[in-house]
Amino acid sequence: MELTVAQLAKRINAGLAGDAAQLARKIKSVAPIKSANQSNVTFITDDRHKAAITDSKAGAVIVSKSIDGLDMPQLIVNNINKALIEVMKIFAPTIKVQDAGIHPTAIVAKNVKIDKYASIGAYVTIDENVEIGNNSIIGNGCKIGENSKIGMNCRLDSNVVIYHNCSIGNNVIIQANSTIGSAGFGYTFIEGKHCHIPHNGGVIIEDFVEIGANCCVDRAKFDNTIIGAGTKIDNLVQIAHNVVTGKCCLIAGQVGISGSTKLGDGVVLGGQVGLKDNIEIGNGVMVGAGAGVMNNIPDGQKVAWTPAYEWNEAMRIMVYTRRLPEIAEELKQLRNRIKVLEASKDNTK
Amino acid sequence: MELTVAQLAKRINAGLAGDAAQLARKIKSVAPIKSANQSNVTFITDDRHKAAITDSKAGAVIVSKSIDGLDMPQLIVNNINKALIEVMKIFAPTIKVQDAGIHPTAIVAKNVKIDKYASIGAYVTIDENVEIGNNSIIGNGCKIGENSKIGMNCRLDSNVVIYHNCSIGNNVIIQANSTIGSAGFGYTFIEGKHCHIPHNGGVIIEDFVEIGANCCVDRAKFDNTIIGAGTKIDNLVQIAHNVVTGKCCLIAGQVGISGSTKLGDGVVLGGQVGLKDNIEIGNGVMVGAGAGVMNNIPDGQKVAWTPAYEWNEAMRIMVYTRRLPEIAEELKQLRNRIKVLEASKDNTK
Amino acid sequence: MELTVAQLAKRINAGLAGDAAQLARKIKSVAPIKSANQSNVTFITDDRHKAAITDSKAGAVIVSKSIDGLDMPQLIVNNINKALIEVMKIFAPTIKVQDAGIHPTAIVAKNVKIDKYASIGAYVTIDENVEIGNNSIIGNGCKIGENSKIGMNCRLDSNVVIYHNCSIGNNVIIQANSTIGSAGFGYTFIEGKHCHIPHNGGVIIEDFVEIGANCCVDRAKFDNTIIGAGTKIDNLVQIAHNVVTGKCCLIAGQVGISGSTKLGDGVVLGGQVGLKDNIEIGNGVMVGAGAGVMNNIPDGQKVAWTPAYEWNEAMRIMVYTRRLPEIAEELKQLRNRIKVLEASKDNTK
Repeated sequence: MELTVAQLAKRINAGLAGDAAQLARKIKSVAPIKSANQSNVTFITDDRHKAAITDSKAGAVIVSKSIDGLDMPQLIVNNINKALIEVMKIFAPTIKVQDAGIHPTAIVAKNVKIDKYASIGAYVTIDENVEIGNNSIIGNGCKIGENSKIGMNCRLDSNVVIYHNCSIGNNVIIQANSTIGSAGFGYTFIEGKHCHIPHNGGVIIEDFVEIGANCCVDRAKFDNTIIGAGTKIDNLVQIAHNVVTGKCCLIAGQVGISGSTKLGDGVVLGGQVGLKDNIEIGNGVMVGAGAGVMNNIPDGQKVAWTPAYEWNEAMRIMVYTRRLPEIAEELKQLRNRIKVLEASKDNTK
Repeated sequence: MELTVAQLAKRINAGLAGDAAQLARKIKSVAPIKSANQSNVTFITDDRHKAAITDSKAGAVIVSKSIDGLDMPQLIVNNINKALIEVMKIFAPTIKVQDAGIHPTAIVAKNVKIDKYASIGAYVTIDENVEIGNNSIIGNGCKIGENSKIGMNCRLDSNVVIYHNCSIGNNVIIQANSTIGSAGFGYTFIEGKHCHIPHNGGVIIEDFVEIGANCCVDRAKFDNTIIGAGTKIDNLVQIAHNVVTGKCCLIAGQVGISGSTKLGDGVVLGGQVGLKDNIEIGNGVMVGAGAGVMNNIPDGQKVAWTPAYEWNEAMRIMVYTRRLPEIAEELKQLRNRIKVLEASKDNTK
Repeated sequence: MELTVAQLAKRINAGLAGDAAQLARKIKSVAPIKSANQSNVTFITDDRHKAAITDSKAGAVIVSKSIDGLDMPQLIVNNINKALIEVMKIFAPTIKVQDAGIHPTAIVAKNVKIDKYASIGAYVTIDENVEIGNNSIIGNGCKIGENSKIGMNCRLDSNVVIYHNCSIGNNVIIQANSTIGSAGFGYTFIEGKHCHIPHNGGVIIEDFVEIGANCCVDRAKFDNTIIGAGTKIDNLVQIAHNVVTGKCCLIAGQVGISGSTKLGDGVVLGGQVGLKDNIEIGNGVMVGAGAGVMNNIPDGQKVAWTPAYEWNEAMRIMVYTRRLPEIAEELKQLRNRIKVLEASKDNTK
């Protein structure tokens, strides 16, 4: 893909600043300010980056407000983040999309409904009563268990395993080696051994959910484990049985959510966060990376630390924890000063 | 599956309370008190749930002691947890079990012994000298390395990888995308580079072990990494080389156990716990979620926090850590009061 | 494999101590001091193990300095760690190496260059323009995406997924079920939903890198995520988009490195460490297990704790945190003593 600056501006509906020669520059890809060269368009998503632009070797820059005196063609847009995504899509490497249809090596059981525009990759195995919708792409080596449904425009990358009775909505992406619908970790100790509690429930993954690589979403004991619409999940995340997340949550890498915990809408969990079982996390809650949440969190609260406290309290605790050696030293000095006072009091008796 | 309340009681050997019409109700599945409807049986595993039962729409309830004045048929059992598992098995969704025999696409090397009632799925690959016992089910896309043995009644779900020289006992379950027998993380720095120490040992997974999805159990340098009989492991757990766990341990999601660490019997590790290498965890030890254990733990101790301390000590530390800002403030006030005392002493000279 | 002590000494170029009968002993494998028997050679890598050797049943011992009066044949070497690796290689179990050539079930797209001495396993799928070098072994069920290059002497174990536009150097090992080149976790919130930022970059894995099982290395937004030459990565590790690691780093199990963070050369990260995004970790930095690193770390520093502090400071904080209940108690006592002093002062007025 190669576009002139002028052509690119047209494609993303941007205003233009620059002379004719500048607007005729050929752009081949997007790059950050520092590493960009003449054939790259760069971008300013943050005012802090403005200073660096004068030194950039980029062929053009996307801005949300034109910059005076800049010797570089500018594409002026209303929403810089949206424009950046558009431009990155324009210059995305062209990778062959898996062909529609069922690969001859795919093994498909009886009573399976696969839309004719769906694509089933090589060495995929599909059990009975599965449904796969229009435009969905099942990568090589995936396994789809009995009765599971996959909507439209989904993409399951290679070696993803979906167990039975799982429901995947539309426009869902699941990256390689993830597992959906494994039985949850629920045992009862009976007559000297841990007996597994059957997990009769399923998993519901709603529309526009995206799940990273090597993640696990366990099936429910009863009812369903539910990932709410628009929620995005990073790699190596563990979602236990009967968890329910709200809509548009962001769950970073290596997070673990224990059984039956509920998340509201728009919850943001930092990397490696752990949530206890059977708690409720309110709408819009933000949990700082690495925190261990042991209790319910009300709507809108930002928390950090283990156990997790409200953000400002957690920051204060961190500051004072670091000052602990100093506090202990001061305590020692006060003890000595009190001794002196006590001795002096005794003397005055 | 549909049973009347009376039929269900017979199946699980339960006493009955309720009138004829109630005992003739048709039950189709199990559900928790709140979400249950007329065609569900519910259950009271905890006295705390008793209050809710009067409002429940369940068709019947399983109890360990009959409840007076309840307008709902009751199935009275000795062991409520055991009964619940039985009932959940009765109403489990019926999923087709993989056929016995070797799928024509499975690739089986020489000198492999596969019991005729074992089931080898599609696209499985099995290396030389492997043995697979009666009734064991190897899911699609699994790989079993040279000389590895799998006992009876095992279930390996899709895309599990077992390396060479691993020994899996009887009645073992390993869920999808887990890896058993990968080489451990052991390096020696020689002549300017990290050299991998060969891992000549293997892995032994004893009877009735259950391992979740996307777990890793590394092979040993010498001898074997051993998972003791009846131990249950959740998803995304890392078991390093030469770890030995006792019998009937419970290891929750995302736990990491470092090299050569030994666990006694009945150890319980909460989610995201990390254990240092070369330590010994006694029988019956419980480690709270997220704890980092750096030292040996004696039998029966309950620990928490990072680094892990005995439970009550850890709770006390947590309480005082939270009170740190207050402690610092009080220290400041005491300092001022001492200043006043000192000034007054000087004045009285 | 069976060698006499004398033959083994010759193979590893070791000096010998022992009588003729001892040097004729048959050695079949390597074992640690405690579990070794007559047919095992053992070793002393640490002076602390010296005491135990007199009780060992080993057939021979490898030492870096001969031990007087020991009734066991000794193999004396300059570099004990190097010798141990050599001996372990000699006695490694002989496992059949996957045959060179392309397995008939592998599905190879157009314009793929596979060296004739490379080995492509069963049920592997390879997309267009892939290159695979001399002696490299692609395990069963792997998927290699479009344009990706794999150098010489590499080993990808079963079910590894390499996405498109990834570059794997020479002598690289990637263990089972790992995922390289998944799209990173980058979203922008636009018009009420999280929009994924396209990841146009790739992944570069340099020579002699080793990656464990079930790991994830995300592709970059721009440019490349880079794993530096000689870096070794344990299992279940998450490497986010645009991370760059230096050479010869050691990254233990379940570590998470957030987006765009840079590691210098020779960095050592303990198990379950988490690194914030966009920070820089200097050359030779060591991060203790479980630490959460929120800031840049200068070259050569050793850090621990969450948030991570310089090692000695962290240890001091841990000590004082544990003493917190005691500190609070002493504070209470001081308060009482001050009250007494204040009362006494008032009395003297």
